[in-house]
Amino acid sequence: MQEAAAELGYTASPAASRLATGRTMTVAIVVPVLAKWFFGKTIGAATQELRNTGYDVLLYELATPGQRERFFGSPRLHGRSDGVIVIALQPGKKELESLASQGQAVALLGAEGPGIGSVSVDNVGAGRDAVRHLLNLGHERVAFIGIRDEEGSNLGGVPPRQRLIGYRKALVEAGLAREGVLEQFDENSVGGGAAAMSRLLVAARAPTAAFVASDEMAFGALMVLRRAGLDVPRDFSVLGFDNHELCEVLGLTTMDHDVAGQGQDAARLLLDTMNGGQPRSLGRPARLVIRESTAPPRVLRKNSTAQPDLPATF
Amino acid sequence: MQEAAAELGYTASPAASRLATGRTMTVAIVVPVLAKWFFGKTIGAATQELRNTGYDVLLYELATPGQRERFFGSPRLHGRSDGVIVIALQPGKKELESLASQGQAVALLGAEGPGIGSVSVDNVGAGRDAVRHLLNLGHERVAFIGIRDEEGSNLGGVPPRQRLIGYRKALVEAGLAREGVLEQFDENSVGGGAAAMSRLLVAARAPTAAFVASDEMAFGALMVLRRAGLDVPRDFSVLGFDNHELCEVLGLTTMDHDVAGQGQDAARLLLDTMNGGQPRSLGRPARLVIRESTAPPRVLRKNSTAQPDLPATF
Repeated sequence: MQEAAAELGYTASPAASRLATGRTMTVAIVVPVLAKWFFGKTIGAATQELRNTGYDVLLYELATPGQRERFFGSPRLHGRSDGVIVIALQPGKKELESLASQGQAVALLGAEGPGIGSVSVDNVGAGRDAVRHLLNLGHERVAFIGIRDEEGSNLGGVPPRQRLIGYRKALVEAGLAREGVLEQFDENSVGGGAAAMSRLLVAARAPTAAFVASDEMAFGALMVLRRAGLDVPRDFSVLGFDNHELCEVLGLTTMDHDVAGQGQDAARLLLDTMNGGQPRSLGRPARLVIRESTAPPRVLRKNSTAQPDLPATF
Repeated sequence: MQEAAAELGYTASPAASRLATGRTMTVAIVVPVLAKWFFGKTIGAATQELRNTGYDVLLYELATPGQRERFFGSPRLHGRSDGVIVIALQPGKKELESLASQGQAVALLGAEGPGIGSVSVDNVGAGRDAVRHLLNLGHERVAFIGIRDEEGSNLGGVPPRQRLIGYRKALVEAGLAREGVLEQFDENSVGGGAAAMSRLLVAARAPTAAFVASDEMAFGALMVLRRAGLDVPRDFSVLGFDNHELCEVLGLTTMDHDVAGQGQDAARLLLDTMNGGQPRSLGRPARLVIRESTAPPRVLRKNSTAQPDLPATF
């Protein structure tokens, strides 16, 4: 103990020296929820990038509107961090002013702001591409399962709504009418996806395919379909969003948006800005990854069905 | 901007006041890897508990032995945090001395130390229980798929080895001989589990069941079995460890060790210690959660098999 203390005792207090130089060598990462796959991936990738350049990471979970208000309403980061990565929360004008007044450089992930570095995905285009693929396979009744804006939470937000807009665009392009019953929203979880799919299965005319705005929800949708005795993709096609590691296990066709790459890019943008660079906005592509959960609807695959005259809806 | 600056300008610098009182109101969480399900869950639960009592969280990922050495070899936390939760890393004597000399209270998760607050699971007992269940179903050739200590990483460690010890104990109890070929180790991931299961499938006498020391590896094992045309549990039983959210989707029987509860308990223990309480060691139970991936071996289910005279190995 003495040995270590002696060794450490002669080092100037890092807190004091940080205060003297005005650099904290710390970056704050702010998320609406920690224990979710997307956030683990982005935080992990951003932290690795920051650590490689000598930065520590302060982590803030703003789970409720009250927490968000307290965080942005007080000088929480002043003297604690040099910059902040805000993930999946669209900060308002006052919130950005609060960060600026605390001397924070800012980078956004999954949001955009004027004059602020940001990393985002063309979620409208990705949603449209996903639905186009289902329409190209021959599906005519394609549902959308989306992430519900939770009351009393900061989850949800812009990207999930953009995916819905992409879904609607693809329907319009194809001359198909929107139907409220085909748009189901729930919690972004396996259970939420299962509940939303269950609601689709009681529709007067059930869909033959669904674009699901998160893979975790799509996993729940697959579970419900299996329990209902429906075969994927023979009876129903499911297309997810994220390219979660377990898509391969479940054979889920999905839209990949390189989640780890988004975290890494956000960290790089912030480091650039802290070093005096101009804030940049990076648009990142999404791409379709085809696995086994999508196929033409049964009505178009007469040769492979036992009862070729069944309607496409079951 | 002026308005916000004025509003914030009159507040004393939190960094300065923290320095004056000697309390940082910050806790460090140290993990070997961030972007893994177990760590997302434990960090999320611990952070929520800490936030509720007004603490900020500093996050350190010590992915390599070099990073670990630099972290414990420098006064990294001095003046930055009041305490530290060390997850899934067994700190040595010198490492603990380094933390003490930096004025840090300590709580361990998934490790133990004399006089230090800790949360741990009886992994030997849990491993033994898991294998007993497979033996009780009638399996006689039960494999173990474990987490490999990665070279150049701090992953692996004590709990995975304890699960192996539990496996061996259950075999001994049942009078069964250990066979090297039935113990396979790989990376703790879907791919690692798939690779380990593939190696079991080329054994001269293949097993009929496997206890897999992590659910993510078990998911990979299920994927390989499906691709091999083998039915789970008709041809092969798989029993995992963790109770990952997706176990329900994949029907995986597993050992639940309340991962979020472990994170919450570690935070509570640390808060107790920082408030002058005596460090305590919490042993937490694990429990078997039966789903659809385990059943008696085919040889014992003659009524339900098309070819009743097939040997239990395929």
